[in-house]
Amino acid sequence: MSEALRTAAILVIGNEILTGRTRDANLPFLAAELNRLGVRVREGRILPDEIDTIVEALNACRARYDHVFTTGGIGPTHDDVTAEAVARAFGVRLVRHPEAERRLRAWYPPEKINEARLKMADVPEGAELIDNPVSVAPGFRIGNVFVLAGIPEVARAMFETIRPQLEGGPPLLSRTLRVLAPEGDVAAPLAEVQARHAEVEIGSYPFYRFGQVGTHLVVRGRDPARIEAVMRELEEMCRARGISCERVDGEGGEA
Amino acid sequence: MSEALRTAAILVIGNEILTGRTRDANLPFLAAELNRLGVRVREGRILPDEIDTIVEALNACRARYDHVFTTGGIGPTHDDVTAEAVARAFGVRLVRHPEAERRLRAWYPPEKINEARLKMADVPEGAELIDNPVSVAPGFRIGNVFVLAGIPEVARAMFETIRPQLEGGPPLLSRTLRVLAPEGDVAAPLAEVQARHAEVEIGSYPFYRFGQVGTHLVVRGRDPARIEAVMRELEEMCRARGISCERVDGEGGEA
Repeated sequence: MSEALRTAAILVIGNEILTGRTRDANLPFLAAELNRLGVRVREGRILPDEIDTIVEALNACRARYDHVFTTGGIGPTHDDVTAEAVARAFGVRLVRHPEAERRLRAWYPPEKINEARLKMADVPEGAELIDNPVSVAPGFRIGNVFVLAGIPEVARAMFETIRPQLEGGPPLLSRTLRVLAPEGDVAAPLAEVQARHAEVEIGSYPFYRFGQVGTHLVVRGRDPARIEAVMRELEEMCRARGISCERVDGEGGEA
Repeated sequence: MSEALRTAAILVIGNEILTGRTRDANLPFLAAELNRLGVRVREGRILPDEIDTIVEALNACRARYDHVFTTGGIGPTHDDVTAEAVARAFGVRLVRHPEAERRLRAWYPPEKINEARLKMADVPEGAELIDNPVSVAPGFRIGNVFVLAGIPEVARAMFETIRPQLEGGPPLLSRTLRVLAPEGDVAAPLAEVQARHAEVEIGSYPFYRFGQVGTHLVVRGRDPARIEAVMRELEEMCRARGISCERVDGEGGEA
């Protein structure tokens, strides 16, 4: 794959994911959307609500990747520590953002405004707000780090507001071939096809369904003509071995 | 929480998770099971099928935590690189394990045995096999690293075979209080309860359902009596503010 592709890491923050209480929906959503925008997700991390751990992961990832996305930990309670961790990672103060405070005061009735809720207006100095069309309390961006909410509906709405900042790269494309044979039957010729085409990446994923054992071969890249050429080689590889195959894009054959 | 608790990291390996093609089911499963066994999952990482990246994450995590669990990347195809990465991380050779080879040769008809399938018998020198009651090709353990398959049914079956090696710690317990008020209404008194009880960890998770906005407060710890005392303080906190609450363990109120 080309080195010009933009890269990203996704940090999912919250003890509830690490205890198994809550099943994360944000990483799958962000991963799929970023790939569509031509941003390659290189790594995901699931982190506890602990400032030092978050700071360390943030600093490792923001130095290494073009973008870092975090979800979770920006609510009003004591276990919401993401904003403070981001401020520490950047070595700046946490400050109350006047526009964020204005939005919170306009949204909540006066008797509901308290210091805990106003904490949601605290952002690292220099951060820009990310709009929250669902429940007002904003996310923020500082440098190459985008800080989103943990509630999936809110994370998605926030992502839509930053999507225009992320567009412009050539999208990552993929095509899927369903092969009616187990992986081990085609592993050797498959490796040869991959070796001849370093410009695409071929993933091999076994499946077991309707009593059948088979393999989905996923060809990923940026040049549709090269992907098509590789798909034809894979179809020919199957034909030569008497193995049935069919293209299945559009029916569960995502990237 | 006590420092005597055993800790773990979970590494989920596979490009298909990072493109959003496949939704990981192994981390939630392992996280929940490990918590039940009294092993605290401190971190999860989602990694691409790239040896250098996996080696770096393995070495960071195996030095830091009592156990490391990996899932994915131990099949027969070119994109299955986990065993080689683990060998490099430990600085040992990858060797063909005679018992693993025997099992594969006993399982597949002779004409189906090929070098790609036998690759599934290659493990880091010194590793012990982890049985695979579903599809034979084993996982393995070396040092504090447990290497499991990516297919959820196989990962679960392998985990059952190693469960006895992990038992013995005091389990992590949790109780959940459903509070019929948004987080921001109780954040301040909640922080006071947490500050008085450092021996438990209180998580606060908003919910929106049946048209209601509310908060699940989850009290986690190892001492049932202390958890009960904190639950009573939280109930009293609600009562004093005229807020309804109820215990919901057993109905979606997991750890």
